[in-house]
Amino acid sequence: MPHPDSPFLAVPGQPFDLSDRATVADVFESRSEAKAVAQECGEAISELAHKLYAMAGTKKGPKVLILLQGMDTSGKDGTTKALFRHTPPLNVRVKPFKAPTKPELARDYLWRVHEAVPAKGEIVVFNRSHYEDVLVVKVREFADAETIEQRYAQINDFERLLVESGTVILKFMLHISHDMQGERLRSRLENPGKRWKFNPGDLDDRALWPAFMDAYETMVRRTSTPDAPWYVIPSDDKKTRNALITQIVRKSLESMDLHYPDPGHRPGDYEI
Amino acid sequence: MPHPDSPFLAVPGQPFDLSDRATVADVFESRSEAKAVAQECGEAISELAHKLYAMAGTKKGPKVLILLQGMDTSGKDGTTKALFRHTPPLNVRVKPFKAPTKPELARDYLWRVHEAVPAKGEIVVFNRSHYEDVLVVKVREFADAETIEQRYAQINDFERLLVESGTVILKFMLHISHDMQGERLRSRLENPGKRWKFNPGDLDDRALWPAFMDAYETMVRRTSTPDAPWYVIPSDDKKTRNALITQIVRKSLESMDLHYPDPGHRPGDYEI
Repeated sequence: MPHPDSPFLAVPGQPFDLSDRATVADVFESRSEAKAVAQECGEAISELAHKLYAMAGTKKGPKVLILLQGMDTSGKDGTTKALFRHTPPLNVRVKPFKAPTKPELARDYLWRVHEAVPAKGEIVVFNRSHYEDVLVVKVREFADAETIEQRYAQINDFERLLVESGTVILKFMLHISHDMQGERLRSRLENPGKRWKFNPGDLDDRALWPAFMDAYETMVRRTSTPDAPWYVIPSDDKKTRNALITQIVRKSLESMDLHYPDPGHRPGDYEI
Repeated sequence: MPHPDSPFLAVPGQPFDLSDRATVADVFESRSEAKAVAQECGEAISELAHKLYAMAGTKKGPKVLILLQGMDTSGKDGTTKALFRHTPPLNVRVKPFKAPTKPELARDYLWRVHEAVPAKGEIVVFNRSHYEDVLVVKVREFADAETIEQRYAQINDFERLLVESGTVILKFMLHISHDMQGERLRSRLENPGKRWKFNPGDLDDRALWPAFMDAYETMVRRTSTPDAPWYVIPSDDKKTRNALITQIVRKSLESMDLHYPDPGHRPGDYEI
């Protein structure tokens, strides 16, 4: 279940303005408190993920989809690290969505997404997702307005299918400011250990910042549904972002009644 | 590069008898030393894996395949945890091979394996593998003797293709004793947190232990090649097993010259 009482939820059916949403949040006493929260939640997630793994073979084996969207440098990789740095990859999988390939472009845009959804017992992280098809595709006009307009309902229908088939969907928009993106891009250039992450093409998207923010706002308005609501996470501070998201994921997993299944065998049933 | 001077290597071209290989090893002072070694290597692997991730976009982007084979309870999941409990799943993927599906059986046995090999920048763990096709398939006679006989060379050819295409292959046989398997199966029945792992079908394989050991011995003899040699790891003690395997994986990654690539951008090249 998505965590319903978070202040960072974009409540389905209520007005949503991105300008009302801060990119910074004063919810932790200090950065070291935020770090400790993320650490503690990450460790709890590891245990919960193992129970989820154990339930893969059960009739209602649970499935979890964590979806991360955000502008370049907003911290999609960093969030993934914070969530799963303590969890072995037995049943956790990261699926990055890059520019579509030719075979992908020859199908509908949800084709490659459907292929990647979690199986029973799995947690899958989407690093970007089908929402790119109403974000960059919209801003750069890779599709016409009518096609984009149809996609919001298509996406809601698709996600409802997943939820009704037993998937918990947690959607996070990593919300950063234009200034913070500038700082992080400069830091990538300055730091030899981060330089591999710098892509000059990111500057083209940066130049279209207001159009992207409009597209994000419309995305949240149209696709924050009771089945799969959006969380809009203040992400200018990495430690705060990690603490907030690991908290929400932890609480969501805790609400799923994950447990080691009992197949009914008992000692003495078999001669070993 | 596989680690060439490990005492647990099945040296290509040299005689191999499984009966010469112990399931216990006295290589660490104590179990707590073994635990500390696995911990330290696991942390080092995390850093190396991140560099490998950074190199995904480079021309010779490295690829790593870690292949785990062993009887039930030999610790394939446990080894995966030890290797990657400190590594986020950004570029680490676990591929379990179960009984083949109908579409898989309609192709050759390497079809589903080829689909799952690591891409540039990836580490993939095979939990079981194509070697099941010369193990359980042989012991239970799911294929005729001539077909099995052909497979050793087919597998060597397939692995050479992967190695010549830039993949490092590390193959581990987790070697346990018949007694230790009995102990672990009983423990699964007795421990409510482990009971979900108990599969009565495992007892059928256990009854065929000598035939399986013969099949493992032949497998190592025929497929421990210079391209992709086998390590036969004493696995009766979990901490020793984890320490030995994390050490070998760490050394292999260290020999690969992993580093954060420098795309040549410099501060000042761009206005941000």
